[in-house]
Amino acid sequence: MNPLLKARVARGAAAEDEANYILQDMVKVVFTPSGRRGSFPVNTPLLHAARVLGVDIDSVCGGRGLCGRCQIICAEGSFAKHQIDSDSTHLSPLCATEIKYGERKAPLANGRRLSCHTLLLDDVVIDVPPESQVHRQIVRKEADYRNISLDPATRLYYVQVAEADMHVPKGDMQRLMETLAQEWGLANLSYDSRLLKTLQPVLAEGKRSITVAVHKNQQIIALCPGFRDKSYGVAVDVGSTTIVVHLCDLSNGEVLSSASLMNPQIRFGEDLMSRVSYVMMNPEGAGEMTVVIRDALNSLFAEVAAEIEASVEDILEVSLVANPIMHHILLGISPVELGGAPFALTTDAAVEVPARELDLNINGGGRIYILPCIAGHVGADTAGMILSEEPQEQDQMTLLVDVGTNAEIVLGNRQRLLACSSPTGPAFEGAQISCGQRAAAGAIERVRINPETLQPRFKVIGCDLWSDEAGFDLAIESHGVTGICGSGIIEVVAEMFLSGIVTVDGIVDGELAARSSRVIQNDRTWSYVLHSPANDEAQIVVTQNDIRQIQLAKAALYAGVKLLMDRIGTQKVERIRLAGAFGSHINVQHAMVLGLIPDCALGEVSSAGNAAGTGARIALLNNQSRDVIETLVKNIEKVETAMEPRFQDYFVDAMAFPNKTDSFPNLFSVVSRPVPKVISDGAGAGRKRRRR
Amino acid sequence: MNPLLKARVARGAAAEDEANYILQDMVKVVFTPSGRRGSFPVNTPLLHAARVLGVDIDSVCGGRGLCGRCQIICAEGSFAKHQIDSDSTHLSPLCATEIKYGERKAPLANGRRLSCHTLLLDDVVIDVPPESQVHRQIVRKEADYRNISLDPATRLYYVQVAEADMHVPKGDMQRLMETLAQEWGLANLSYDSRLLKTLQPVLAEGKRSITVAVHKNQQIIALCPGFRDKSYGVAVDVGSTTIVVHLCDLSNGEVLSSASLMNPQIRFGEDLMSRVSYVMMNPEGAGEMTVVIRDALNSLFAEVAAEIEASVEDILEVSLVANPIMHHILLGISPVELGGAPFALTTDAAVEVPARELDLNINGGGRIYILPCIAGHVGADTAGMILSEEPQEQDQMTLLVDVGTNAEIVLGNRQRLLACSSPTGPAFEGAQISCGQRAAAGAIERVRINPETLQPRFKVIGCDLWSDEAGFDLAIESHGVTGICGSGIIEVVAEMFLSGIVTVDGIVDGELAARSSRVIQNDRTWSYVLHSPANDEAQIVVTQNDIRQIQLAKAALYAGVKLLMDRIGTQKVERIRLAGAFGSHINVQHAMVLGLIPDCALGEVSSAGNAAGTGARIALLNNQSRDVIETLVKNIEKVETAMEPRFQDYFVDAMAFPNKTDSFPNLFSVVSRPVPKVISDGAGAGRKRRRR
Repeated sequence: MNPLLKARVARGAAAEDEANYILQDMVKVVFTPSGRRGSFPVNTPLLHAARVLGVDIDSVCGGRGLCGRCQIICAEGSFAKHQIDSDSTHLSPLCATEIKYGERKAPLANGRRLSCHTLLLDDVVIDVPPESQVHRQIVRKEADYRNISLDPATRLYYVQVAEADMHVPKGDMQRLMETLAQEWGLANLSYDSRLLKTLQPVLAEGKRSITVAVHKNQQIIALCPGFRDKSYGVAVDVGSTTIVVHLCDLSNGEVLSSASLMNPQIRFGEDLMSRVSYVMMNPEGAGEMTVVIRDALNSLFAEVAAEIEASVEDILEVSLVANPIMHHILLGISPVELGGAPFALTTDAAVEVPARELDLNINGGGRIYILPCIAGHVGADTAGMILSEEPQEQDQMTLLVDVGTNAEIVLGNRQRLLACSSPTGPAFEGAQISCGQRAAAGAIERVRINPETLQPRFKVIGCDLWSDEAGFDLAIESHGVTGICGSGIIEVVAEMFLSGIVTVDGIVDGELAARSSRVIQNDRTWSYVLHSPANDEAQIVVTQNDIRQIQLAKAALYAGVKLLMDRIGTQKVERIRLAGAFGSHINVQHAMVLGLIPDCALGEVSSAGNAAGTGARIALLNNQSRDVIETLVKNIEKVETAMEPRFQDYFVDAMAFPNKTDSFPNLFSVVSRPVPKVISDGAGAGRKRRRR
Repeated sequence: MNPLLKARVARGAAAEDEANYILQDMVKVVFTPSGRRGSFPVNTPLLHAARVLGVDIDSVCGGRGLCGRCQIICAEGSFAKHQIDSDSTHLSPLCATEIKYGERKAPLANGRRLSCHTLLLDDVVIDVPPESQVHRQIVRKEADYRNISLDPATRLYYVQVAEADMHVPKGDMQRLMETLAQEWGLANLSYDSRLLKTLQPVLAEGKRSITVAVHKNQQIIALCPGFRDKSYGVAVDVGSTTIVVHLCDLSNGEVLSSASLMNPQIRFGEDLMSRVSYVMMNPEGAGEMTVVIRDALNSLFAEVAAEIEASVEDILEVSLVANPIMHHILLGISPVELGGAPFALTTDAAVEVPARELDLNINGGGRIYILPCIAGHVGADTAGMILSEEPQEQDQMTLLVDVGTNAEIVLGNRQRLLACSSPTGPAFEGAQISCGQRAAAGAIERVRINPETLQPRFKVIGCDLWSDEAGFDLAIESHGVTGICGSGIIEVVAEMFLSGIVTVDGIVDGELAARSSRVIQNDRTWSYVLHSPANDEAQIVVTQNDIRQIQLAKAALYAGVKLLMDRIGTQKVERIRLAGAFGSHINVQHAMVLGLIPDCALGEVSSAGNAAGTGARIALLNNQSRDVIETLVKNIEKVETAMEPRFQDYFVDAMAFPNKTDSFPNLFSVVSRPVPKVISDGAGAGRKRRRR
């Protein structure tokens, strides 16, 4: 008898046994960790007992001993009738199917059994290890405070479909659906109409055994001949600058491979608004941008699949976050309406479409899930950040900030959530800064200035030594010191402020030129020389205009935060999470010194990593999280900064370091407060702004 | 104030009035033919009153005076408080919107009003004419016993969508869906994701007014700027030989244009099985055939749209019937499994897919509905015939027969329905008959043979005269007499039998050569000369083999019918409907003489026209009929003739004219029974068959 048939017979026998319940010798079983317990006739398969008791044990093959997902461990129990000597007294001995499974896949670890092929003989305690649970937890390495419960939207089901029968002339699709209903309880399924073409060839190839991918327990989206227990999903974060994808094993949530690419739309404009302008000028431009972004995703999908020697056909799901403009362009929607007031989204709801509708090359029936947008400037990436960070689960007044060309800001706790976007511009990314550059080898990322001597020391990316340590010159010889990256610019400006080189109003104090040759005149304003190389490389200088750019960017960010604090009616923030690459690299204390973020206990400010991308991964691996974020987003209060009269006032106050009106008790308990000094200056940004 | 705004204000006012109900002067209104009645405050718009009372009045524009669907007639009512002098006493006078409607479309017929713009002033009786009812009846010209109730799956809805608002940053799609829910009660709609691209441009073009096509009150499938009240559907009958399409106005069910084409698959094989063989030999063949059939449909869609000066974009629905092999090929499914036992369908359920999934060029969001199949040989065309003929509504034991290369046979009444298919071969279509030809000018279609002289007279297609009437030769000069078409072959063989030229066993009686020069020897068998032209054109002769082909075909048909009668346990059929082109043209009496159909009162045998195509049209125009046929088909008992041992016996008995074992009391009460004569003949089909 073939093993499949055997398993079916065993299942049939179990059902019969159940009918004879009363007549038989009964044994007790307790499952841990669930604690569910019950009595069953001798010879009941463990998997069957687990199902009856509602114990969460996984299975793809439906009890045929093929998938190995239903492994359990026999533990001793004090309630046993007899002393437990060995498993074999209380459970049936290892059977041929289990031995075969061990040969075909990995041998069963010590004490492990396939619960579908293990029969109850006497009272036992059975432990269901985490990896055998359907809703098992995935430990998130990058964020320690919560885990993802594995429950992907698409799951595999293996069945044997009865041969066609002339006397019962129903379609093979109906036969398949009936089998899925009987064996897996999947009632009222629909199917992707494209599968009509492949069903009979697949059934023939698998000799009527077939693995079916079912989306949300509703629709059959893919078919595969024979037994199969691997399927993949990809989490995607489409940023304005970078696209990052992670391929995950949908059976265990593991990230198997990752890849990233510069967003190829950069050739249409470095920042989002210039890309929208491009479309305004070139009506065909939206279509072109849609094509390049989809092509980029397709090449990334091919790359991550190839890395694990899989095909893109094996990718059944994609979950994606993006800002509203990228979101719309990816969907083939012109972003022009997002380019000006009232910043009308075409859709703010989550989008779920077959991948082929977006020309994305994964499995022909594969699905794309795009998280919901929050407002015209606050996109699915922010939704991803919220899904990852769960501010709605916090008691503390929590501030989430993702800084890019726009800063997305979320404030709240379990009572209430507010969100807005603020136009910080690209200064924090090193753009529009005279010596600014991307984070790459040779870029200055850490800076300290001695307030007495005004002498700096710094670290560059790619070298572990400080610039004043022995061997530094030699260590950097290969790349030199090439510029200042985003986190470096924050540090140098903060250090210039702390050492008095820059005043609260953001003016480089020319009087200090008397004390240090590093303060130099440049036209009508003053600059600070951060690095003067011995060789003929260019000096690295922070100019008055660089300071001004940082002031404008940080004022926009801070004003946005203030607006939300105002709206929610709080004077202080209790916890701050900084998301994105910028958030991972900046020094929290320096950021607060400049007033990028409001005052907060420094221990409560931390990096959230790529929170948007993590949100995409959560939505990929846990179907219910999609409902969570979709419902949550509807209840988030959206604040449009451009429409708030107070935004301008907050902005002006926030031009000062750290802020004109706010005190920073937490900050100034650890940092010595610089002497306030205001220099009258024609280019004084504060007053200039106010005059506008 | 623009008229749209005015209408909205009027609606708002009506709602307010309702709130002040008690304070106001109330008037009574009775709607006919529904008889619904109620009291409303003075100045209530009639359409509003109708809605409140659940009176069935149509509207596309939602009460804006644009569509003219809600026209009513003011009738006098004896219950009126005052004598009714003119409409204006009891209803508000004709308003500017109504006058404008009359100028823009057709002027309102005498006494007609737009109920959305007519206010109740005093007690009235309002008649809702049939064309203003949502579920109005369409009178079927070709079938008098029942009508189609108009209720298409796709309907148009007109709305004004509010401008985007920065303070409520929801998507325009969400705004649209909310408006549809508020104004039309369409809750929980989904949308075709491709519409995301077009939504904002369409809203802009229509200045936020938009007409939306909604499929099954579930999904938005198309968008059109501004107001629109015309949409079209196409009913399609894909036959093995011919494809016929009818374009219908979905707003009134009228057939506006029709077109047909030879099935281009004929180049892969004349009949179905040879096309399946082609696929078996050429694995790419299925794909090629799919392409040609879809191309043919696309050219027909373009043709019927062009005929009414519409675009294929205006076609929102297609409803289609086809036999199982055409059905599968159209869906892109290889038909090889249908080529041999167990004749396994890929799907027997109805199929509903976006047209684009089948590469069919109608509206980008348009839907294709394909009726369900019944068994491997009994397809959606038979389902269409059943939908059109409604045997399940009959008390009489009803036989439906659609004769083609296969005969589809349905037998039953309101108690029970059975269906089967029988392989008649192409003889009834004139193929495999020595002088057979398609029904075209010059083909013999009517034949009478004088039993005394054995002299024939006949009529040809394209000429109203019998061949023995004066002027016949002149009348047919242009095309001559070119062959015998399907109905002609039935008549000539039946007449040969009735005149004794052919025996009950189907042997041409050579002894008659002594009596008539028309009986001629041909090798070892005898033939009958039907037409000997004066000029050098070829003779038209009915050979022994021709008779044999007709015997085989009619025996297959009759055996199928007998099998079903057997299964249902009836000795006689009370009503026969012959569907298809063949059924429309054959002489019922001749068909019964040959034993194509069982004995039945001749008055109860009639043509059902293109019943399959009519079924497609019903499914197009009435959404509920889809549920009806889908449910019905599941309960039809399918009989597989190939598996029935008795089929062979019935077949052998049915080789005789009209049948070896059955009596034909109804037939022989009107036709003189020919003298039974059996000639021993080596080619005797009956015996030969039995030996197989």
